[in-house]
Amino acid sequence: VSAPVVGVDVGGTKVLAGVVSPDGRVTRRALAGTPGRRVPASLVEDALVAVVGEVADGLTPAAVGVAAAGFVDAGGERVMFAPHLPWAGEEVRSVLARRLGCAVVLENDATCAAVAEAEHGVARGARSAVVVTLGTGIGGAVLLEGRAWRGAHGMAGEFGHMQVVPDGRPCECGRVGCWEQYCSGHALVRYVQDRLAESTSPLAVTGRQDPGRITGPAVTAAAAAGDPLALAAFASVGSWLGLGLANLVAALDPDLLVVGGGVSDAGDLLLAPARARLAASLAGGDRTTREGAPVRAVPALLAAGLGPEAGLVGAAVLARRV
Amino acid sequence: VSAPVVGVDVGGTKVLAGVVSPDGRVTRRALAGTPGRRVPASLVEDALVAVVGEVADGLTPAAVGVAAAGFVDAGGERVMFAPHLPWAGEEVRSVLARRLGCAVVLENDATCAAVAEAEHGVARGARSAVVVTLGTGIGGAVLLEGRAWRGAHGMAGEFGHMQVVPDGRPCECGRVGCWEQYCSGHALVRYVQDRLAESTSPLAVTGRQDPGRITGPAVTAAAAAGDPLALAAFASVGSWLGLGLANLVAALDPDLLVVGGGVSDAGDLLLAPARARLAASLAGGDRTTREGAPVRAVPALLAAGLGPEAGLVGAAVLARRV
Repeated sequence: VSAPVVGVDVGGTKVLAGVVSPDGRVTRRALAGTPGRRVPASLVEDALVAVVGEVADGLTPAAVGVAAAGFVDAGGERVMFAPHLPWAGEEVRSVLARRLGCAVVLENDATCAAVAEAEHGVARGARSAVVVTLGTGIGGAVLLEGRAWRGAHGMAGEFGHMQVVPDGRPCECGRVGCWEQYCSGHALVRYVQDRLAESTSPLAVTGRQDPGRITGPAVTAAAAAGDPLALAAFASVGSWLGLGLANLVAALDPDLLVVGGGVSDAGDLLLAPARARLAASLAGGDRTTREGAPVRAVPALLAAGLGPEAGLVGAAVLARRV
Repeated sequence: VSAPVVGVDVGGTKVLAGVVSPDGRVTRRALAGTPGRRVPASLVEDALVAVVGEVADGLTPAAVGVAAAGFVDAGGERVMFAPHLPWAGEEVRSVLARRLGCAVVLENDATCAAVAEAEHGVARGARSAVVVTLGTGIGGAVLLEGRAWRGAHGMAGEFGHMQVVPDGRPCECGRVGCWEQYCSGHALVRYVQDRLAESTSPLAVTGRQDPGRITGPAVTAAAAAGDPLALAAFASVGSWLGLGLANLVAALDPDLLVVGGGVSDAGDLLLAPARARLAASLAGGDRTTREGAPVRAVPALLAAGLGPEAGLVGAAVLARRV
C-alpha cells in the first residue's frame, strides 16, 4: 500500500478529509465539525490532524493539501483572514507539516475547487476559465493555462467583493453593494424571505409558518417543483450572476465560465437566466462584422462537475504536484 | 543604416507613426489625419502605408507594429470592430504586410500602451499589472509575467464596459452604467457641462460663454489653477477610477496599477482621489492579522510613463519580437 495523498477542506462548519486517487476520485472520507471561530487556532489544527489520521488509516500521507475558507498569503504559508475560522495570520502550513510529518500545501478553498475543475472537471483542457463558487457568498479563481492565477498577494479571485451597486446592500466586508449581496446562497434565501408577506406561493406559505425552513436547498427544491417565488429568486440571482460574469468577461475574455458551489446544484434554474443576462451584457456581443460574423463570442457557461468535494480534490491535486 | 522598426497608432482622428529604437525611444515621427469611419477601409490603409513610408525614409522596415483603436481578433489578423474606423472584420494584418513588404503585428491600442509600459515604462519588472488608459473612453490591458493577457478572443482588457451602475447612464455600446460613462475624458467634460448653470467657478463662466471650450485639457488646466468645479470633476472621475480599480484588484490582485491616457496628464488631481477610493473599497483592506500586519496590501497606483506615444512604442515592441 503506497502512502495516500489527502485533501482536506476546512470550512466554517465542517472539516472534510479525503484520500484522492491520481485520477481525482475520493476513495476514503472522514469528517469532523469545525470547533468554531472564537477558539484557539490549535483546536482547528487538532481537528484537521485527527481527520487526516482517520482517513489515512495509520499511514503517513505522501502529501496533504488543505483548502481553507479564507485569504491565504502569496507564499501559501498563512491564512491571513477567515470569517468563520480562528486563523488570522498564523503559519498554518508549517505547523501542519510538522504535526502531520509530510509536505503540506495550503490554498484558498475556491481556488482549490477551480484547480479540481481544471484537472478533473469541466475546465479540463480549457486554456483559460473564470470559476465562480456560489455558496453562502462568492468565491472564485481565474485559471490561465490550466493553473490558478494567485495574484501578487495570493488574493486573486475575490469576485464576491466587486461592487455592482453603488450605495447598495451592506456587506459583511464593511463595504456596500458587493456582488455576493445579490448573487449567492445568502442572496437567494433573502430574496424569498423579503417577499414572504406578499407572495401566495407554496414556499411563502411554508416560510410564514416557519422562516427557518427557507434554506438554499429548500428554495432549490421549490423552484424545481415550479414554485413561482422560488423561480423568481433564481431569476434574480441568475441575472446578477450573468451581469457579474459579463464584467469578468469584459476584463479577461476567458475561454470558459464555470459555476460551482451549492447554489449551482439548481442547474439551469440558475444558469438559464445567467446565460441570458450574460449575452445581453457583453459590449460587442450584438455586433457583427461586414461579413455577418459575430464580433465576439459569448463564452460557454457550465455547471461545475465535481460537486461539494471539489475543494478537497483540488487541494490534493496541488499536494500531488509538490 | 539598418532597417527600422516602426510603430503606428491608428486612432479616430490621426495616424501617428514612429521609428522606435530598441530602448523604446521614438527617433522619427510622421502624422496623417484619419480619413474617417464611413469610407472604404483601403483609405485608412493608404494613410497608414504613407506615414510608414515617410517615417522609414525610403527604407523597407524590418517590421511594423500597428496599434488600432478597436477589437483585434485572437489571431492578431482582423480588426473586428472599431467605433471610429471603417474596419469591421477585414484581414488588416495580411493586407498591410503585403503592401508594406515586411512583417506586420496588429494589436489593440490600449494593449500596445500597456506593453510599452511593461517594456520601457513604469511597469518594467512588475510581475503583474492592470493598465487602464483613460481617453475619451477606457481602454486597458492585464499584464502577467510582463506579457499582455489577450484573452480567448483577443478581447481582454475592455474594462470600460464593466457595469458599475445598474440602470445607469446609457453607453455607446448599447448598454447602460458602463464604467467609462463615469470615468473617462468624456465623463470629466460632461461633469462640468452638467453644472455650468449652477456653478460660479471661472471654468463655469467660460463654459456659459462658449460650451465648446470645455475640453479635457481645459478642465485639467482649470483644476491645476484651483478652479472648484474642475477640481470637483476630477474628484468624481478619480473616485470612480478608484472604485473600478478596486473591482479589478478583487478579481486579479495585481502587483501594480497603472493609469495612462490623456486624462492621466492631470497626475495627482486624478490619482489622489483614486487612491483614496481604492484603499476604502478593498475587502480586507482595513483588517489586520493577530500580529497587527495588514491582511492585504493596496497595490501602488502610478501614472503611465510614456505619454501619448505609448501605443506606437508598444506596437513597435511587439513587432520587434516577431
